[in-house]
Amino acid sequence: MAKTKAFALQAADARFAPLTIERREPRPSDVAIEILHCGVCHSDIHTARNEWGGTTYPCVPGHEIVGRVSAVGSAVTKVKSGDLVGVGCMVASCGACSECQAGYEQYCLRGATFTYNSEDRVSGGITYGGYSERIVVDEAFVLRISEKLDPAAAAPLLCAGITTYSPLRHWKIGRGSQVGIVGLGGLGHIGVKLAKAFGAHVVLFTTSEKKVEDGLRLGADEVVVSKDEGAMKARTKSLDFILDTVSANHDVDALVSLLRRDGTLCMVGLPDKPLSVRAGRLAFGRRHLTGSGIGGIAETQEMLDFCAEHGIVSDIERIPIQEIDRAYDRVVASDVRYRFVIDAASLR
Amino acid sequence: MAKTKAFALQAADARFAPLTIERREPRPSDVAIEILHCGVCHSDIHTARNEWGGTTYPCVPGHEIVGRVSAVGSAVTKVKSGDLVGVGCMVASCGACSECQAGYEQYCLRGATFTYNSEDRVSGGITYGGYSERIVVDEAFVLRISEKLDPAAAAPLLCAGITTYSPLRHWKIGRGSQVGIVGLGGLGHIGVKLAKAFGAHVVLFTTSEKKVEDGLRLGADEVVVSKDEGAMKARTKSLDFILDTVSANHDVDALVSLLRRDGTLCMVGLPDKPLSVRAGRLAFGRRHLTGSGIGGIAETQEMLDFCAEHGIVSDIERIPIQEIDRAYDRVVASDVRYRFVIDAASLR
Repeated sequence: MAKTKAFALQAADARFAPLTIERREPRPSDVAIEILHCGVCHSDIHTARNEWGGTTYPCVPGHEIVGRVSAVGSAVTKVKSGDLVGVGCMVASCGACSECQAGYEQYCLRGATFTYNSEDRVSGGITYGGYSERIVVDEAFVLRISEKLDPAAAAPLLCAGITTYSPLRHWKIGRGSQVGIVGLGGLGHIGVKLAKAFGAHVVLFTTSEKKVEDGLRLGADEVVVSKDEGAMKARTKSLDFILDTVSANHDVDALVSLLRRDGTLCMVGLPDKPLSVRAGRLAFGRRHLTGSGIGGIAETQEMLDFCAEHGIVSDIERIPIQEIDRAYDRVVASDVRYRFVIDAASLR
Repeated sequence: MAKTKAFALQAADARFAPLTIERREPRPSDVAIEILHCGVCHSDIHTARNEWGGTTYPCVPGHEIVGRVSAVGSAVTKVKSGDLVGVGCMVASCGACSECQAGYEQYCLRGATFTYNSEDRVSGGITYGGYSERIVVDEAFVLRISEKLDPAAAAPLLCAGITTYSPLRHWKIGRGSQVGIVGLGGLGHIGVKLAKAFGAHVVLFTTSEKKVEDGLRLGADEVVVSKDEGAMKARTKSLDFILDTVSANHDVDALVSLLRRDGTLCMVGLPDKPLSVRAGRLAFGRRHLTGSGIGGIAETQEMLDFCAEHGIVSDIERIPIQEIDRAYDRVVASDVRYRFVIDAASLR
């Protein structure tokens, strides 16, 4: 067992403090990883502060992990010591159910083991995430990351990247697609980059006038400030697909009205109140309201390879772990462009 | 112009009374039809009583029309005098927009002309529906009906039939599909018959214990009484497709939980309150909430031909037009098995 420095919360209303955790000795199929960087996802905050309920303390969040392999078990073939690798939202799943077999480990019928705050079926207790020096993960859940990418800026791809890539791919977004991206935050800014890389015409919807310029810089063809009723109305029945990345409660019904017949609005943000949409809004034009949760492991690798090929990474602000509480407050205030990434050297 | 006996409402809270309306002289592309039967759709009631707003009085409802051709214009090729024909929810559309061109006249971007309470772009005024002796319709919106079918029982196919057929076809329901039909009313009972004819395993969901037997008789493989929490829970993540025919407000979120990954719940009932569904319910399994409105003309013909081939008609109760007010009250009380059909002879 390896003593490992981490940062943890001891209660929903506490502040982060150092905690020594233990990582298991690598089993034959395990990969030991020295963490270099870990992105700060809004889910970390929801979990750390127990906003979704069900948080076990101490809680060590972090599921946008990039590091280097320090040791591998005897059966590992996917990576070797020294390789740049990533770990995303999951570290295990049953592997046997129809969902796992189909490559949808995130929808595992027995419940995937998430990277933090999940029952650890191997080591017992609860999983601890990437706000730590090192992690040990079964090779099946380890992703290869190209040396072409800046490792810190690549970290957010492990959650924000796959969460936006998977639905854009599933709905076959490409040249000729009229795509709306709602919200310019951690997810939205990568969504804009990916949709553009796929060849779509990208319309960014934001509530903030201040983000118009950034939206265009990141690759949006148009930016609509959603408070502008005329601009919204001009986009009625015009979009094939909308990726809605906003986790604050908002008017989804109005966004559905922007879809063409057979168009789809896909939620990747998870507002706490139920969505409200009129049946007629869906029926007159056979429009779809759906959602998507991260992506499977094979698809996450595909996404990382695509990003390496197209030079896509997150826009980030680097922080030492000691600034994590303030970073959380700034994320909640939408005051980050566009992802905080922890420098794991600050833990050592 | 042909003086035509009809039954009309003069106000939302009035009772039906005879009214003489005029039907235009057939233009070269028109078909004059002597009406034999007209189904009583819940939409008739919503419109007649101005429950959706926008009703113009006098109002002559009725869009499940079966009759015989009495005369045709010089350019008509689709039907001839004496043919058994139907008219559904629409009598015209622009014909030029992308939706009309794609066979989705019901989603016409300039607005389809509905069979009643719609601006009549040919004759002026408002369209009057099938609670009348005769109607004159452009041949493009006239459907052929097989002599194999009972004409009275075929009438509800023109709205209830196509409304359920279109989504079942669009989502490729067939052998191996696990399909839920929610609600056993005018739409639901035809939905059960069609889904069964397509080869699906059909699970009927009803709030009423009393409808279990009828559900099985109509072809459902299973009937779940939706108040039975255990029976509902047993169906979690099991269905590929749910056709929700209920127009009363109800818990759609609970029904979405019955869908497998990538499953779809399609609303064809239109509750007056917005639907409420949790984003996570959609995202964990990439489930879809959608809706569908009637169907295009070509697809309506396809549906009628399918029903003729498979002997599918509505279960009906025949009434003379003089009983229409009482029939409305009984429809609202869900006291009809499963569609009232007006005998147009009672108008003459």
